[in-house]
Amino acid sequence: MGDSMVRFGIIGVAKIAKKISRAIALAPNATLFAIGSRSIEKASNFAFDNGLSSEVKIYGSYEVVLDDPDVDVVYIPLPTSLHLRWAVLAAEKKKHVLIEKPVALSVVELDMILEACKVNGVQFMDGTMWMHSPRTAKMKEFLCDAKMFGQLKSVHSIYTFEVDSSFLANDIRTKPDLDGFGALGDIGWYCIRAILFAADFKLPKKVIAFPNPVLNESGVILSCGCSLFWDDGKLATFYCSFLEYMTQNMTVIGTNGTLHLTDFGIPYTEKELRFYTNSKYGFIEHVASSKPLPNIHIIPTDLPQEAHMVMEFSHLVKQIKENGSKPEEKWPTMSKKTQLVLDAVKASLDRGSEVVEVGQM
Amino acid sequence: MGDSMVRFGIIGVAKIAKKISRAIALAPNATLFAIGSRSIEKASNFAFDNGLSSEVKIYGSYEVVLDDPDVDVVYIPLPTSLHLRWAVLAAEKKKHVLIEKPVALSVVELDMILEACKVNGVQFMDGTMWMHSPRTAKMKEFLCDAKMFGQLKSVHSIYTFEVDSSFLANDIRTKPDLDGFGALGDIGWYCIRAILFAADFKLPKKVIAFPNPVLNESGVILSCGCSLFWDDGKLATFYCSFLEYMTQNMTVIGTNGTLHLTDFGIPYTEKELRFYTNSKYGFIEHVASSKPLPNIHIIPTDLPQEAHMVMEFSHLVKQIKENGSKPEEKWPTMSKKTQLVLDAVKASLDRGSEVVEVGQM
Repeated sequence: MGDSMVRFGIIGVAKIAKKISRAIALAPNATLFAIGSRSIEKASNFAFDNGLSSEVKIYGSYEVVLDDPDVDVVYIPLPTSLHLRWAVLAAEKKKHVLIEKPVALSVVELDMILEACKVNGVQFMDGTMWMHSPRTAKMKEFLCDAKMFGQLKSVHSIYTFEVDSSFLANDIRTKPDLDGFGALGDIGWYCIRAILFAADFKLPKKVIAFPNPVLNESGVILSCGCSLFWDDGKLATFYCSFLEYMTQNMTVIGTNGTLHLTDFGIPYTEKELRFYTNSKYGFIEHVASSKPLPNIHIIPTDLPQEAHMVMEFSHLVKQIKENGSKPEEKWPTMSKKTQLVLDAVKASLDRGSEVVEVGQM
Repeated sequence: MGDSMVRFGIIGVAKIAKKISRAIALAPNATLFAIGSRSIEKASNFAFDNGLSSEVKIYGSYEVVLDDPDVDVVYIPLPTSLHLRWAVLAAEKKKHVLIEKPVALSVVELDMILEACKVNGVQFMDGTMWMHSPRTAKMKEFLCDAKMFGQLKSVHSIYTFEVDSSFLANDIRTKPDLDGFGALGDIGWYCIRAILFAADFKLPKKVIAFPNPVLNESGVILSCGCSLFWDDGKLATFYCSFLEYMTQNMTVIGTNGTLHLTDFGIPYTEKELRFYTNSKYGFIEHVASSKPLPNIHIIPTDLPQEAHMVMEFSHLVKQIKENGSKPEEKWPTMSKKTQLVLDAVKASLDRGSEVVEVGQM
């Protein structure tokens, strides 16, 4: 735990916090400094279950984590309905904010969070881990290749996994008062992000949800889909569901080539990531390929994508702390664009698949 | 050319006829007997260009092919607007009918063709080649596996290829008087068939086209998509386009597993076909797999899928000719169900993405 380490505090012991505490341990520039839950007991259990170092501070409330002057960053895996309160409070306490998705219940709430971060000069980033994978950077290279890929025409994403009856009965993602977006906010978020990523973060103009989403008895979305349209003719579709076997497809089609993978959210393996391309201009150098099968791009990496996320966030925090840099605008902008589309899709679903214009930046 | 060979006549020398003449040459139970075009010269050129045997009869009209008593089967690759006339006439001349897709301009026309085939006791089959691939049978095995795959939840298909300016200006698939379905009839047909195949040929109840299809100046579809719904909650989506790089995705999601391939229409290679599955019950015996990557199913085959189609068709024709069997109902039924969905999608597109009920059998 050198001085140059960025010190993380975690508020809330959701399952995802386990993944992030491991990522913090793996990231060379970050350290887990404190963990807070609504009771000391829950926090202690989490520390014990995850084999945390005895140096990690255990707190029985979220506030104490925010009040600890040695905490640089607060990671917030709380239910979405609590994000506004705790993210704003964290920013006001000058903590940098790493927060789980969906970031907020609406773009209005998100704007309040982002404003608090801006006013207090802290970095904001949402927990979309796959954005930080070295594979994602390589995919972007292909999508930016005017020859191999050409102009973007359409993007299609599917993200499903099958939950069990306990999840359906108890998980926060099925509770309207905790996380009203359900599957749309949890995994539809990834689809929307994949679409925006492929579209170089140009927002679609309008969306129209597929009719007949599956809702639970409280009206929370369990399955839904949507088509999205840009003014220049680009189109995207996505489909997400809590009721179907694990599928994580991203297909991006250009005029000259196609990019494809079936594990974009959580890769099949941590250390050897793959994606597939086809192109009318044939093969890319340094890519294993077997004509006429697709090009297979293999990206070795020493760290899982969530550790890359923690590293990137910690790097930005250090730039701010040590060099007086401004927070990086790119990450809050991505979150806001994703939330703008999310809100439009939700509105279309709520209005029986009406066409809804996407709010613009 | 033994007596037991089924003798094919081809009427029309469309590009696809080249593929089928090769398939007939490869199929052990079929022989190309005659080729007819609107002029002797065109038919001769086709024979020369494709190195056809000098024994193949060259005719300067379609009628002469139909009138040749030695022709058993007529393969019809003509523009869709001519199908009704020539398929009915072929059936009336007691020729078995193998016909390109889309089969007809509407299910009303298709019913007239099927009725003519029924009355005249001839076999009917459309030219959806991939249905006859040995890979398709293996995929069906997986989809029927109640444990590995479970219950079908959703199907997603994409079929695109990018045409050039000459195609856009001249191809029959862009002419409203020849083939009014455009990309929907040409490649959307494959998507619809993939969806029906995965749904065990249970027809969806209703469809709603994506808004904003791309049409050419004559109103012919160049890009479009649709969502499809069954009463039991199953959902499907497809997207097809003449304006995007070659993509042929089929993703079928069940409660316990997923099937996936990116070359379902025309396989990457003729002799080693692949598809991919994931399942919560792990691996299928006799399948090359590398945990936790998807199972890779490799199906070797000696013949391309179009030769399998010609073999299957010829087999049925021989059963009828030699054993007095009835024509196999399965193939016309598949064609009709595909056309019923096609008509509903076209109606939804024409009505600005209204919900349209699918006609039932």
